[in-house]
Amino acid sequence: MIQAPVKVKKYGGTSVGSVERIRKVAGDLVEEHRHQIPQVVVVSAMAGSTDELVDMAFKVANRPRSRELDMLLTTGEQVSIALLAMAVHDLGSNAIALTGAQCGIVTDGNFAQARIQDVQTAKIHRLLEDGNIVIVAGFQGVTLDQEITSLGRGGSDTTAAALATALKSSCEIFTDVDGVFTADPAIVPEARLLPWISYEEMLEYAASGSRVLHPRCIEIAHKFNLPLQVRSSFKAKAGTTIIRKEILEEVAITGVTGDAGIARIALTGVRDVPGIAAKISQSLADAGINIRLIIQGIRHDQSNDVSLIVPEQDAQRSGEVLQPVSREVGAEEIQIDTSVAKVSVIGSGVASNPSVAARMFQTLAKKKINIQLISSSEVRIACIIEQDQLESAIRAIHKEFGLEQLERKKVEPA
Amino acid sequence: MIQAPVKVKKYGGTSVGSVERIRKVAGDLVEEHRHQIPQVVVVSAMAGSTDELVDMAFKVANRPRSRELDMLLTTGEQVSIALLAMAVHDLGSNAIALTGAQCGIVTDGNFAQARIQDVQTAKIHRLLEDGNIVIVAGFQGVTLDQEITSLGRGGSDTTAAALATALKSSCEIFTDVDGVFTADPAIVPEARLLPWISYEEMLEYAASGSRVLHPRCIEIAHKFNLPLQVRSSFKAKAGTTIIRKEILEEVAITGVTGDAGIARIALTGVRDVPGIAAKISQSLADAGINIRLIIQGIRHDQSNDVSLIVPEQDAQRSGEVLQPVSREVGAEEIQIDTSVAKVSVIGSGVASNPSVAARMFQTLAKKKINIQLISSSEVRIACIIEQDQLESAIRAIHKEFGLEQLERKKVEPA
Repeated sequence: MIQAPVKVKKYGGTSVGSVERIRKVAGDLVEEHRHQIPQVVVVSAMAGSTDELVDMAFKVANRPRSRELDMLLTTGEQVSIALLAMAVHDLGSNAIALTGAQCGIVTDGNFAQARIQDVQTAKIHRLLEDGNIVIVAGFQGVTLDQEITSLGRGGSDTTAAALATALKSSCEIFTDVDGVFTADPAIVPEARLLPWISYEEMLEYAASGSRVLHPRCIEIAHKFNLPLQVRSSFKAKAGTTIIRKEILEEVAITGVTGDAGIARIALTGVRDVPGIAAKISQSLADAGINIRLIIQGIRHDQSNDVSLIVPEQDAQRSGEVLQPVSREVGAEEIQIDTSVAKVSVIGSGVASNPSVAARMFQTLAKKKINIQLISSSEVRIACIIEQDQLESAIRAIHKEFGLEQLERKKVEPA
Repeated sequence: MIQAPVKVKKYGGTSVGSVERIRKVAGDLVEEHRHQIPQVVVVSAMAGSTDELVDMAFKVANRPRSRELDMLLTTGEQVSIALLAMAVHDLGSNAIALTGAQCGIVTDGNFAQARIQDVQTAKIHRLLEDGNIVIVAGFQGVTLDQEITSLGRGGSDTTAAALATALKSSCEIFTDVDGVFTADPAIVPEARLLPWISYEEMLEYAASGSRVLHPRCIEIAHKFNLPLQVRSSFKAKAGTTIIRKEILEEVAITGVTGDAGIARIALTGVRDVPGIAAKISQSLADAGINIRLIIQGIRHDQSNDVSLIVPEQDAQRSGEVLQPVSREVGAEEIQIDTSVAKVSVIGSGVASNPSVAARMFQTLAKKKINIQLISSSEVRIACIIEQDQLESAIRAIHKEFGLEQLERKKVEPA
């Protein structure tokens, strides 16, 4: 029995956001089915439906319990897989819709942010061999006790990566953009689509405000060396493939991203004693707030200013949570500034090429953009700047590095 | 450990039709929970949500497959149980929402009309002992292969009766009416609430156009001798209890019902040979059409007129389905009449008291209402009449039998 390799495809909420779009996706699946390509299709909830359900939950209860919130939210994907399977039948191909439980996506019991522990593939293989398109609900799993769990935001990407890994298949993420660009084309019209990008770079894109792929999905793909392809569900274009750094020709930087959804919290005049950062981190972690960046700047009078970057929607609550810590470490005051933004340059050559940082800072200086904080990693340099200067910063950096002419090549393995 | 007996309660779609109503039901449950009463609560989908889902299915596909239709529709109850459990938590009591699969409601694999084969109660008992209100999705079950099934229309009533039987508990059906009346109070303002009614009578009410309880629920209750109580979810009133005929004081008739949602199909001049009714029944059964009544009237010329009563929405299709049979039996023509209605008198004394039929016919004659067809059972006499005379017929019969003064008593078992 000769069969083409299995393809795992993931369609996001916008791609299945209406009856017409569901029929369009069904048409694409049926077309590939006619070419005998075995397909496992992971689907998100229809765009907007998750927000509607969350909204209802918070009308019914002040603090909806996470077990029942997961039970509620997972209905969104159950609706979209059922509809997509019906649409495929209607076009004459066989399809089977499977919930996370039916598919055998086993997770731990951490509701709202469950981790996948096992993906059972026997049923999927059997259904594929019987000639079905297998349509799987993203975002959801089941514990060994039959409890319904969700994988948290972006969970459908994670489902797709986990299934592709378990099935040793390729993984295509269909979305409402054409792929990963050197910058947001809405800000930089000359931005170029990146045909290739490394896992490390893509993780930085995800952490730097790009909503294209969820970080957990990239981590799974990276861990298991799974090539991911991000492409448009509306156009027949190749998109961006995410692969190992070693098979990419190194270029200094591959893109510029901006993130306006952040806030800066500063504790000023903190006593210079060890363990302050740990105290602050712990308080915010206990409150479920994700710190994006924490920086201690030394002042001359033996006291510190400690600055944190948090998601903008958590700013007010962070201030409240930090009140007791602030008193404990003798801080003068807590400042909250939501008018900041982060501009990042991303590229596998950042670490090995110190001139990248220098050129970035000079470009911002020439534009009279003040840099408030800097952080860097192997593949990223991020600057916190004034929010109203963000677009101008992105355009200037994109131009400085000549990204409108970027040609990224894959290096054929030896 | 002394515990009050378990109560099974069922809330229909109207009772949980909005955020406010869900909070109202939650309040009632928490109130009883404070009195240590163990409760298993079966919930329907929020009013209107099932229709919306069906609507989407038929937009996505011309003929949605029943497996995926069940997967789609069962999300409606999953939403309402999750919301109700959240609302209960919010009021400070413990609740656990369970889907049909989690609850262990095992059915056969007949999608869209699955039959319950087993109800596993160990998990429910354990959750009740831990002090939880157990909230169960109505209408749905699961096969041994983990396929999601639905029990068909009225399925939540069936779930409640099956659970109450398995748990050997009482069963209260909360709905948007106060109980079962001697006639529809919208037509007969003097109609009285029946405090008691027998299973047989209730089945006839269900078959005669009353939407209060689904026939399958009554059949299960009857089979297992389970007392059912029908009551309003909006008022603290006792409602109607459905019990064994033997413990009811016999009264000639207990109520009058009308059903305008029917059509009469007539095959005229059919050859008088055996097996015609069987042929007709089989053709309609094959098309999934439920015949409510079939009557052969003998004419003088050795040929018959065969009349059928079918649900009004199936009238046109019945005519089409019967074309081949009609030719085969030499019928002159097929007449379809949707301007008919059925008026029924129901009571356990109907069979033993021939004067009931006579009084009913005389009452209609006095009102110049022509009787087209008559059918009767142990506890019912039904007449097919012109639809625009239905309300007048109901009022006249209600008056003739003095139902506005009916006092129905329960006979204490010896």
